[in-house]
Amino acid sequence: MSEQVLRYLQTNRNRLLDNLFSFLKIPSISADSNHRQDIEKAADYIVTYLHDIGFDLAEKQPTNNHPLVYAEYNGAGSQAPTVLLYGHYDVQPADPLELWQSEPFQPEIREGRLFARGASDDKGQVFMHFAVFEAFFKTVGKLPLNVKVCMEGEEEIGSENLYEILYAKKEQFAADFAVISDSGMVAKNQPTILYGLKGFTGLEITVTGPDHDLHSGMYGGAIRNPIMALSHILASMKNKEEIVTVEGFYNDVEPLTEEERALMAKAPSEDFAKAAGVDQTVSEKGYTAVEHTMGRPTFEINGMFGGYQGEGTKTIIPSTATAKITCRLVPGQDPENVQQLLEDHIMKTAPAGVRVHVKKEKLSAKAYKVEPNHPLIKKAAEAYSKAFQSETVYVRMGGSIPVVEWIQALYDIPIVLLGFGTPDDRLHSPNESFPLDSFDKGMETLVYYWQAVGHQG
Amino acid sequence: MSEQVLRYLQTNRNRLLDNLFSFLKIPSISADSNHRQDIEKAADYIVTYLHDIGFDLAEKQPTNNHPLVYAEYNGAGSQAPTVLLYGHYDVQPADPLELWQSEPFQPEIREGRLFARGASDDKGQVFMHFAVFEAFFKTVGKLPLNVKVCMEGEEEIGSENLYEILYAKKEQFAADFAVISDSGMVAKNQPTILYGLKGFTGLEITVTGPDHDLHSGMYGGAIRNPIMALSHILASMKNKEEIVTVEGFYNDVEPLTEEERALMAKAPSEDFAKAAGVDQTVSEKGYTAVEHTMGRPTFEINGMFGGYQGEGTKTIIPSTATAKITCRLVPGQDPENVQQLLEDHIMKTAPAGVRVHVKKEKLSAKAYKVEPNHPLIKKAAEAYSKAFQSETVYVRMGGSIPVVEWIQALYDIPIVLLGFGTPDDRLHSPNESFPLDSFDKGMETLVYYWQAVGHQG
Repeated sequence: MSEQVLRYLQTNRNRLLDNLFSFLKIPSISADSNHRQDIEKAADYIVTYLHDIGFDLAEKQPTNNHPLVYAEYNGAGSQAPTVLLYGHYDVQPADPLELWQSEPFQPEIREGRLFARGASDDKGQVFMHFAVFEAFFKTVGKLPLNVKVCMEGEEEIGSENLYEILYAKKEQFAADFAVISDSGMVAKNQPTILYGLKGFTGLEITVTGPDHDLHSGMYGGAIRNPIMALSHILASMKNKEEIVTVEGFYNDVEPLTEEERALMAKAPSEDFAKAAGVDQTVSEKGYTAVEHTMGRPTFEINGMFGGYQGEGTKTIIPSTATAKITCRLVPGQDPENVQQLLEDHIMKTAPAGVRVHVKKEKLSAKAYKVEPNHPLIKKAAEAYSKAFQSETVYVRMGGSIPVVEWIQALYDIPIVLLGFGTPDDRLHSPNESFPLDSFDKGMETLVYYWQAVGHQG
Repeated sequence: MSEQVLRYLQTNRNRLLDNLFSFLKIPSISADSNHRQDIEKAADYIVTYLHDIGFDLAEKQPTNNHPLVYAEYNGAGSQAPTVLLYGHYDVQPADPLELWQSEPFQPEIREGRLFARGASDDKGQVFMHFAVFEAFFKTVGKLPLNVKVCMEGEEEIGSENLYEILYAKKEQFAADFAVISDSGMVAKNQPTILYGLKGFTGLEITVTGPDHDLHSGMYGGAIRNPIMALSHILASMKNKEEIVTVEGFYNDVEPLTEEERALMAKAPSEDFAKAAGVDQTVSEKGYTAVEHTMGRPTFEINGMFGGYQGEGTKTIIPSTATAKITCRLVPGQDPENVQQLLEDHIMKTAPAGVRVHVKKEKLSAKAYKVEPNHPLIKKAAEAYSKAFQSETVYVRMGGSIPVVEWIQALYDIPIVLLGFGTPDDRLHSPNESFPLDSFDKGMETLVYYWQAVGHQG
């Protein structure tokens, strides 16, 4: 059966890529309200696509912000399992635009890669599922299993309404297992099963000194500089050995076992330094970069600003300084608890003469880990290996996907993270891209996987 | 003689204010090349004004950037002294515009203050001289002394071409003494002689980590965060007791004598905390805020930026982070030497995994101190006291006026800093203003002073 499905994908490759191009051309930037219409357009694109290829139902479900696309196929019968397929059709902003080699919303193929915002995160990966479903419908006339599609338009702005809608419509979204394709492989063409994800918490610190920018000559020596105050606070939170120095931060961290460290040492890891263009990696003292990214919590300042940013000098003591911080958490850590520890540390560290305000990020997620030996995981690994002609590796990764935690909390079903991105995809950055190898072999993997789990069901 | 001159100023007050309004309405922002025409317009305004009231010569002198206005009056005869009068007609940028209560370039009088960008720094103070000269010409027909006017259009961008032009035209600008009105009084209506100014040096630090913004989930734990690296560098440069911790920074500092500390304790000082809107002042351990601002070197971060600055979160490890630093120096300190100490410290402190680049600010100045008992200073104090009906105090201030150092270096003549600004003027900030009291009594002071030094000469 898989032969004709795969042949369909090969024969129709150019047309399918054209369809993906149309999808990528829609600048569905969820963070920018100017793109509200594009968000609708991208959602409509999915509804029409799934409806046209043969889904029983495909609709936009309104939320408080951007719509969620829900679709349903029940033609595999009550004996077949039902999968809940999650992805997102919104993308990150494309700025800084001047750093893109081709237009972010004019997809272009160069050197075996498809360049566009969303090519890897997540429209490209989402579209592969649609193409595979199309191939099944057009050849064998049906899908090997029942499918519920949940495509979100708010992933890049924190999935603010997703939990609420999953909770409210718990029965509608109920399934036997879930598949999420919003992640990557440890290296190009290296089949990778992600069995763990990090949790997430964040906050914003604003330090306010004088109520207006002051002349540094008139007031310098009398007034606390808020940027310096913020620098002192930040510098006190992580040391130069990359150890987070916030009291209690590591208290509940589930330690890495020797077995896991061995597994991590074996997993082919990307060359972080080369991919990032730095002369060396740095990681928490006592841990390798791979161990730190996969299995230890991290603390990052994502942005900071205060005072004069123009050319030359402006001799002021600025009024305010702000820093945005996010942490990636590992199993054992509670996001709200960590957030509170951070706030306590900040308030305790704040020097006299300035006011410090902490704005807690509402979105948070616990880390996730699944049993690598579960049959649904094993079958995914087999499909992967068959398509990519290479042994599948098992890894944990530093990213956070809140929906994983929510699906687990609401349904307690196995979640299979089937991702085809690569370390060079430049997610969230200029020149995002996706390898055509991942596109082709990824679709092949999906064909094998649906057949394997469908037959069994 | 002074009676009729003062009467002229009173009678013509509204017209003179109107003239000042016209001058202030020209947005002569030197830092913004979009305002190049306005710079020319402001320079032309001065040329026309001085020419029309009776100067022998008034002209724009071209520089590599914005023109300098030079004017000459020689009618007081060879027995009278010649003063070199310095000021600047350029202004700081007005942003952030939304914080202005009235338009920055639409002058408005509210509660005894004239609000406009440049009202105090320095157009308002410059114009007072023009009005006083006009009053002398229109009443007694001549000025009590010979005058050379040097009005710069680049003060707010570092006076880049001034030294060169003073050096090249040394004879043309030569005078017996210099008067500069680009400073302030320690309190409103408190006659103040500034007998010392701070020097100045600055630099910009750019920390570069990855060559593009990275996904914090994929790379967090392997890559040094440039904002954190910069925070560590900055926090290592000044401690929470406001002591600069850069090795050698205080080596050549001329210590404050007990006499000077007593003088500083006596000088009526503004309420720094109230003026700045903070709950308390902070100053170098062992020194009061007044001592620190007047007589100890300072270190300020004027601006800092890196990574994401928009709303909400963007989970990146940013590619770069930048900080702008300036120091105010006291007698004894060499600007280039201090700059080098700062750079050495920064390079020594930079952690592995990032590249650090230091851009040294070209503009610098040594601190300045003049003998408070010089006759030209004493006469200024007397004129001041007579106009303001209050005893004159002698202070040093934290500001830096590079031209003071250059005039001293080129001519070795006494420099009298006759300033009428007040601590509430909000220089370089939104809602800059200048008290009408300073305008009226300041002009009166100038009338007394020119007569006193003219008679003597």
